[in-house]
This record gives sequence, structure tokens and C-alpha cells, in this order.
Amino acid sequence: MDAFDSVEGQLAVGGIPARLLAQRVGSTPFFAYDRDLISSRVATVRAALPDGVHLKYAVKANPMPALLHHLSALVDGLDVASAGELRHALDTPMPAARISFAGPGKTTAELTQAVAAGVLVELESENELARLREVAARLGTRARVALRINPDFAMHGSGMRLGGGPQQFGIDAERVPDLLAVLAAAPETDFQGFHVFAGSQNLRAESICEAQRATVAMILGLADAAPGPIRYLNLGGGFGIPYSRKDEPLDLGPIGENLHKLIEQQLRPALPQAQVVIELGRYLVGEAGVYVTRVVDRKQSRGKTYLVVDGGMHHQLAASGNFGQVIRRNYPIAVASRFGGPQREDWDGEPDSEREKVTVVGCLCTPLDLLGDGVELPPAEVGDLIALFQAGAYGLTASPTAFLGHPPPVEVLV
Amino acid sequence: MDAFDSVEGQLAVGGIPARLLAQRVGSTPFFAYDRDLISSRVATVRAALPDGVHLKYAVKANPMPALLHHLSALVDGLDVASAGELRHALDTPMPAARISFAGPGKTTAELTQAVAAGVLVELESENELARLREVAARLGTRARVALRINPDFAMHGSGMRLGGGPQQFGIDAERVPDLLAVLAAAPETDFQGFHVFAGSQNLRAESICEAQRATVAMILGLADAAPGPIRYLNLGGGFGIPYSRKDEPLDLGPIGENLHKLIEQQLRPALPQAQVVIELGRYLVGEAGVYVTRVVDRKQSRGKTYLVVDGGMHHQLAASGNFGQVIRRNYPIAVASRFGGPQREDWDGEPDSEREKVTVVGCLCTPLDLLGDGVELPPAEVGDLIALFQAGAYGLTASPTAFLGHPPPVEVLV
Repeated sequence: MDAFDSVEGQLAVGGIPARLLAQRVGSTPFFAYDRDLISSRVATVRAALPDGVHLKYAVKANPMPALLHHLSALVDGLDVASAGELRHALDTPMPAARISFAGPGKTTAELTQAVAAGVLVELESENELARLREVAARLGTRARVALRINPDFAMHGSGMRLGGGPQQFGIDAERVPDLLAVLAAAPETDFQGFHVFAGSQNLRAESICEAQRATVAMILGLADAAPGPIRYLNLGGGFGIPYSRKDEPLDLGPIGENLHKLIEQQLRPALPQAQVVIELGRYLVGEAGVYVTRVVDRKQSRGKTYLVVDGGMHHQLAASGNFGQVIRRNYPIAVASRFGGPQREDWDGEPDSEREKVTVVGCLCTPLDLLGDGVELPPAEVGDLIALFQAGAYGLTASPTAFLGHPPPVEVLV
Repeated sequence: MDAFDSVEGQLAVGGIPARLLAQRVGSTPFFAYDRDLISSRVATVRAALPDGVHLKYAVKANPMPALLHHLSALVDGLDVASAGELRHALDTPMPAARISFAGPGKTTAELTQAVAAGVLVELESENELARLREVAARLGTRARVALRINPDFAMHGSGMRLGGGPQQFGIDAERVPDLLAVLAAAPETDFQGFHVFAGSQNLRAESICEAQRATVAMILGLADAAPGPIRYLNLGGGFGIPYSRKDEPLDLGPIGENLHKLIEQQLRPALPQAQVVIELGRYLVGEAGVYVTRVVDRKQSRGKTYLVVDGGMHHQLAASGNFGQVIRRNYPIAVASRFGGPQREDWDGEPDSEREKVTVVGCLCTPLDLLGDGVELPPAEVGDLIALFQAGAYGLTASPTAFLGHPPPVEVLV
């Protein structure tokens, strides 16, 4: 929230105050993504990472075409998780050779599209390799492949764990040598390297550093078995963003230093041809987006004040606490049409004379549709605009837009 | 699951075995709704309810147009929760006078469409009444209205509570007399009656009976303050369906008897013009639908067997445990292409020689995409079809279909 300016006493996205932006969009609710915030976030990450490390954007975080096009000029590669995302990625100026396709359930049709496009396929299983070989043989081309490894360690403190123990993701580290032997005898494939992704949404730099050290150690142990030099080494990401006041933002400094050390002391000497890649989704775009919705009703019920808005969980499911969260916590929220002054200072702190405690609910006919539970906001009336922050990643596409038959919201890049 | 037949050793929907149905649909994954199961469910409910009680379908449970059309010939009314649902309801042969519009965040545009269509508007707040009056005056017509009451009691044992205490839904019972006085002096409105809905997804007949008794007592206390005779009395629904083996199906018998008694002894004498309405969504369609998805990969990881399917939580979010559930439980699941014989007997019981323990995951690149956690199924291979049951309500529309950019699934009524 602090990254956004106040203009004319309103929240501004890309310098445009919220009410004017709503007029420009033509309807509420809508998602607005701030172009400059995305650019500056990429610059911040670049400054923290060692020179030469490639930065890749995971399209799944937010596949809006204009945003993707903007990002394609700022990052070194794009990662996709479906044929649909692949199509959007190929529509950008990003060369196909810089696009990778990962995910546990790739269909043969999707593998065909990926090989035809010439993107890097990150293999998740033996069966997938077998199907990919058939596809490449049929197309008469060599498929560029990397192996996604399920490590034998987890990234501690991750919002979601994607590595360690049994997983649907990747190939267990201990089975990788066998698969490398198969690849060495598979002329339909062009082996590039490895992808290791142990967890996501992590706010502890030390956990990320530890996972990177463990990943490098594991890779160095596997490299000898590879059918050729390691040219691609995707160390994953896992960089988290704060979703509530209790979250401390991630400190990039130690991660950059750790990575610098790993590259200089271990990777460059042992794997001189390996291009190190850090892949981020949420971290690049999550904080650059707001979801803006309008107050339709203001009502009292047995001592509680409700603001009913024209949006809801059907557009921003995670903010309602129904997208993988065990405990619901309020996402940062503000009255976008009354933004500036003391209410910017805290999200759900102590009440003061200029604010009131309200419950913000969406327009759906279900008690799940809760956007702000007992939040402190400046008094808002019907017609005021409410902003939910941290809506740039896993927002619209991770929400059940058809639920209850409301029209889908507009997305704008400002 | 038991309601579905086995044909040629496969799950049959509408008599068509799953593999043939998949060919007819042309792609997986898909949702299939069984027309006959819906009809027979409506007949069962009708047989249990006293004669003359109107049965209304809550469109939000499943708004698929063909299903809605089918149901419109079987029920006495439709309830919608948005202008989008209103449009679909008006497309059926159901007369507008038998359609109601409820929900806490109706916009003025939606109120205008509802009044123009002549449907019954179930008012949720004072502010909504004020806006509705303006709309009716502008259109030069009288708006048919009912008051949705937030009772001063809850329905015990409900999956979701929508009444009692502070709520965004309806008007607190104690404030209803004031609102009735406003309505009495509002010539733009045509008062019809009340709607009371205390909870949903309830499997305890006695809790539903108790809520109905409390509702009737409350209504009888409010009727004198009404501006005219009560002609419409929507007692809600809340009838639940079992989602796991531990759930006992709801016993309709006591509910019908209780309602019969309430009508004969209290409602008919006191409110002779009141049409009693029971409104059901999930109960009419939930068990008539299956979600069918195909095995794309079968993989081992550190002692666990995974079936990766081409569908997932983006189509059937509730089955992944991420739609309002506190504790994830497996939805009933089967291998649709190997259905018949012992595996039909239990959902997650003891293993036997013909079954194996597997984890069924979707194709999304997230650990949230879990469809069956350690379930006992007959051995399935790549190409087999997996069916998730209880998918007829709050399935497709309650899921984030755009997540990760896969094409939306087809829905068929069979």
C-alpha cells in the first residue's frame, strides 16, 4: 500500500486518482496494475542479484497480455504452465528459446505445441519424457529439455512447499541419474539442464539461501551423470511478499550475496557453461496491483457496520481467505476515494477519531465473501471506492469469476 | 456415487458409459449432469413436502442453461443472485412472476433490470429499499418486493450460517417493523411477504425443523405490522448433501412432517393467503453431477503413487478443499473407465487386492491442486477416466477456470 501515491486525496495508480481511473475504465470492479511499480520492482531485483543471473517471470502469477508484454522487455525469460500461457508468451517479443514450460500434467497436445514452438520443456516424469520423445520424433525435431528435480529437502517457511518428500512435481533427485542415462540415449532430445523449485511465498531470506545452497550441492552431485554440459540452471524463486501487517518484507540483500558466493566459488568453476536463472512470479507483480470495487450498500446489523461492495471473492478469492489459507487474515485495504492522511499509516491498527471499524463484504450471497473483517477505515459511503492491495498476482485468474453470474472485471495496466 | 449405474464396466451418466460420453463430448475434462437423477430428486422432495408448498430452485447452485431449462419445468420458481442469473432464468419458460432476486450487493442497474422484468425483489437493507423506490418511480411501475429477514437465531449444524447475529444478509428481525411502516407508505412497492434463510448445507433434519419452527414463530409476530396480507413466505432451504463417507444423508421425512404441522396448525389459520416456499439449490442438483477428467501421468515419488489428471482445482475447487472448507476431506472419487464391481462399495475404505492407494492430483503447478489424497482405487493407467462425484452444485462456476490458462471444461446435460 505504501508504494502507491495519494493524489487529490485519493489512491493513485500510475498517477491517476482512483475516481478518474474508474471513469476511464468505465465500470467497477476492476484490477489496475501499476507499470512503474513493476519496472522498479524488476530493477530492485536486478540490483540485488549478481551480474549475469537471468531473471525469469512465471506467467501463472498474472498472465494479463499487456502486463506480460511490458514484463517481456524487462526480464530474460518467461515460464509458462499451460498451452494457453504459452500462446500469450509467444505473442510477446520474447524469443521462444527464452520460454520454458513446466507443470505436472502436460498433455501430449501441449507437449506438441511446446516442441513445435521450440521452447524449453521442463520434464516432470519418466512418462512425460517418453511422450515427449514420441512427439519430437513425429515432428522430426529435437526437443529442448530440462529436468525438474524434486529435491530431497524442503524450503523451510514457505507458504507452499513444492519440493521434498513425495511430490507430484518433478523427478525425485535419487532417480535423476537413471533419467539422465535415458536422455543420453535419446537423440530426439537436446538436454539443457535442471530446474529445482522447493517452495513459494517465503519471507525468510535465510531459508531461501539455505535452499539455494542445498540445490547447488545437489546439482554438483548430479552434473557428472548429465549427457552434456549443464547450460541451464533454474534455481527457482520462492520470494514472498507481505500480505498482512505482521509480515516482514523479504530482505533481498543476503540472497544476492549468497548467490554471488555460490556462483563464484562453486558454479562457475564446476559448471562454466551454466546460465543461472531465478524464476519469480508473485514477487515481480503482486504488490503492483490493486483491486478496486465500489460501495453499493452501507448497513448496520446488530452493532456491526457493513460495507457491501460490487466486487468480491469471485474476483479476488485469496483476499477472502479461501485460496489455500489455513487462517484468514485481512489483506491490506483502503478507501481509494479517501486516501491520504492518517488512514494510510496502518491497515488494522487502533481506531482513531477519523476512522471507524467496518466489515467489508462482497456482493455474493455467501458468508465466504468477506474482504475486510473489522478493518479500520475512514468513513465510506455508497459510491466510495474500496481498494484491496497485493492484488497483482494470483488475483483475477485465481478466482471463480463466473460464480453467481456477475460480469468479469476489467484489468488495466496504468 | 451409488445413484450412478455401471454399464460395460464403466460409470454411466444418463445410461452412456464414460468412455463413449468422453468421445461424444470431444474433450476432457468435462462436467456431466444426469437429467433423470435431477428429475427423480425433485420428485423425492415433492413427495416429502406437504401438498401446495412451492419448490424453488436457487440458480446459483448451477446456472448451466440446459439444466436450468430442464429444472424450470419441474419446480415452481427460480431464485437468482445477479443480473446474469436473471437473464438465464428469464430465458427459460418460467414466468417472471415466479422468479425472485436475492443478494446483499444488488446494484441500481440490477434493481432496474429486476423491476423492468417484473420479478420479485427480496430486499436486503434500508438503502436498497430507497434505491428500489427510485427505480420503480423512474420506470413508472410498482416493484414487487419481499423482505429478507436476518433472524435472531441460527440454524445449528449448517455448513454455512447465513442468519443470526450480525449479518450482511437481510434486515435484522427487530428492525423489520420499521421497514414495514416505510413500505406501507411506499406506493412504488407491492409488498408480497418475507424470505428467511438461516443456513445452508445442513444434514440434520431436526436442525432444519427447529429453524422452520423459529421462522414461523417470528413471521407470525411480524405479520400484523405488514402493509397487506402475506402472500409469499420463503422459508429458505439449507438441505445438505453428503460429501464424504462420514456424512449421513439428510432424512426428509421429519422435515415434511414438521412443515405439514406448521402449515396446518399455524400458517393456514393465521396467514391464509401465504404461499409457502422452500428454496433449494445444492440439494436438487449436487448429487446429479460428475466431473470427469483423464489420467495424463502416473508417477511414483518416494513411495507414493500419483495419478496426474488433465483437470483439477480450476474446475472443481471444492473437491480440492479450497472453497470454504476448514478441513480437507476427499470427495467421492472413482475410476470412471473401471467402474463396477467391488470398487463401487466404498470411497476410502480398506485396501483390497483389486485396488491400490493413490493420490490424484490435477495438472496445475501448485500443491493445492489435490483431488484425492490417498484414495483406494482400481489400478488406473494413463488414458483412464477419473470421476469426482457431488459435482452438480457449486462446481464449475465456483472454480477459478482461468487459473493457469487451461481451456474451460465442457458441461453436458445427459
